[in-house]
Amino acid sequence: MTGRLTVIGLGPGHAAQITPEASAALADAELLLGYAPYLARVPERPGQRREPTDNREEIARASAALMAAAAGDRVAMVSGGDPGVFAMAAAVCEAIEHGPPQWRAIDVVILPGITAMLAVAARVGAPLGADFCAISLSDNLKPWDLVRQRLAAVAQAGFVIALYNPISRARPWQLGEAFALLADLLPPETPVIFGRAAGRPDERIAIVPLCEADAAMADMATCVIIGSAHTRIIARPDGPALVYSPRSVRPSA
Amino acid sequence: MTGRLTVIGLGPGHAAQITPEASAALADAELLLGYAPYLARVPERPGQRREPTDNREEIARASAALMAAAAGDRVAMVSGGDPGVFAMAAAVCEAIEHGPPQWRAIDVVILPGITAMLAVAARVGAPLGADFCAISLSDNLKPWDLVRQRLAAVAQAGFVIALYNPISRARPWQLGEAFALLADLLPPETPVIFGRAAGRPDERIAIVPLCEADAAMADMATCVIIGSAHTRIIARPDGPALVYSPRSVRPSA
Repeated sequence: MTGRLTVIGLGPGHAAQITPEASAALADAELLLGYAPYLARVPERPGQRREPTDNREEIARASAALMAAAAGDRVAMVSGGDPGVFAMAAAVCEAIEHGPPQWRAIDVVILPGITAMLAVAARVGAPLGADFCAISLSDNLKPWDLVRQRLAAVAQAGFVIALYNPISRARPWQLGEAFALLADLLPPETPVIFGRAAGRPDERIAIVPLCEADAAMADMATCVIIGSAHTRIIARPDGPALVYSPRSVRPSA
Repeated sequence: MTGRLTVIGLGPGHAAQITPEASAALADAELLLGYAPYLARVPERPGQRREPTDNREEIARASAALMAAAAGDRVAMVSGGDPGVFAMAAAVCEAIEHGPPQWRAIDVVILPGITAMLAVAARVGAPLGADFCAISLSDNLKPWDLVRQRLAAVAQAGFVIALYNPISRARPWQLGEAFALLADLLPPETPVIFGRAAGRPDERIAIVPLCEADAAMADMATCVIIGSAHTRIIARPDGPALVYSPRSVRPSA
């Protein structure tokens, strides 16, 4: 008797940014698992069980979900943003690969969501309008030297850079070091966007030049977008500036 | 009398993947503009005008929308996927920057959507579960040498690569050259995903090793995802394989 595990992206947090297929899957589940603040966004329904977890131990959480699905439950694993971007979908796949063979028979469905960089970008213009990359700044799962190498490679190659997991109590210095590294490779006026809780009532968005970017402007719920040398700022008289990365690059660039 | 221009992401095409805020904005618009196949996805409403366009002349289309908004209309510019990812939001910003000063007073709202790489990734597992980048393979707007440099930089640095605009009648050879370039830098068994119309009835998804990747497997509506050397495939007895990029990279990598 094998059930189903649906891994669901809630988007950045605003209910109007949850896709209808995600809402339907949330309503259909018998058991909901996920990091407590994400789970708290999902309306309670009679007959549904829920098991909030902390934000560590992703493999343990994935394994618990797979075990319940293998026993026949319709299980929903709730994720912020998009589950495939530095979130639970990869942890579920990893647990399946290293778990008991019967987990490979579970019907796994992954429902995409609006990931943070898209929500933040939309609030300021189109900073991701040219080639871009997404990097998790956490060195819990990869060596810091590799993060540094990747930052240098993409900055030199002209990519816009979206940083996920930029800072936390346990990782207080990495974002500052990233800004310092990038300041050696990019013009001082390169726009940096700090986007927190995009689209939610407690939204906080700041745009500063790279030479003034300060790690203290971010917390663990912030997505930081660093422009390329081509990223532009358009001042506007009646509202916030627009930031965008032009689609075209001239041969001289 | 200045109206509003809302740039709306429709997601990959399945109605259940359009966010409620996007649906509400579509219903509220007086004038809808966009590439005809995207516009065709939007239900007709009495009293709304619509102006379908072809998929070139993005700046002309953006300018037409801004002109109508400046005249007081509530204008919706419809975009596939996410408007900020190789789509209309950057063209709108560019038109504002180079247009008449009064366009800077227009209320511009950008509503994010599920971009193709997220939808394709969700259908196969979590190939974007580690650091990744998105590159438009079109050399209409940037020199092909720059595309080659960027591909090499990110492949060598271990990023998963999502390719947008991989091929078209006018650009038939670029994708094959990209595969050849990447084959020199990545293991032959690196998974390549061809994802077309993800989540729609005419969905077509294929997973092949890089050494067998053939540009003929893509068309202009395909998003191609090329794994890193760490991307894994999990065979499953009763269904399609799962592809994922592990969150962790060991120091030896």
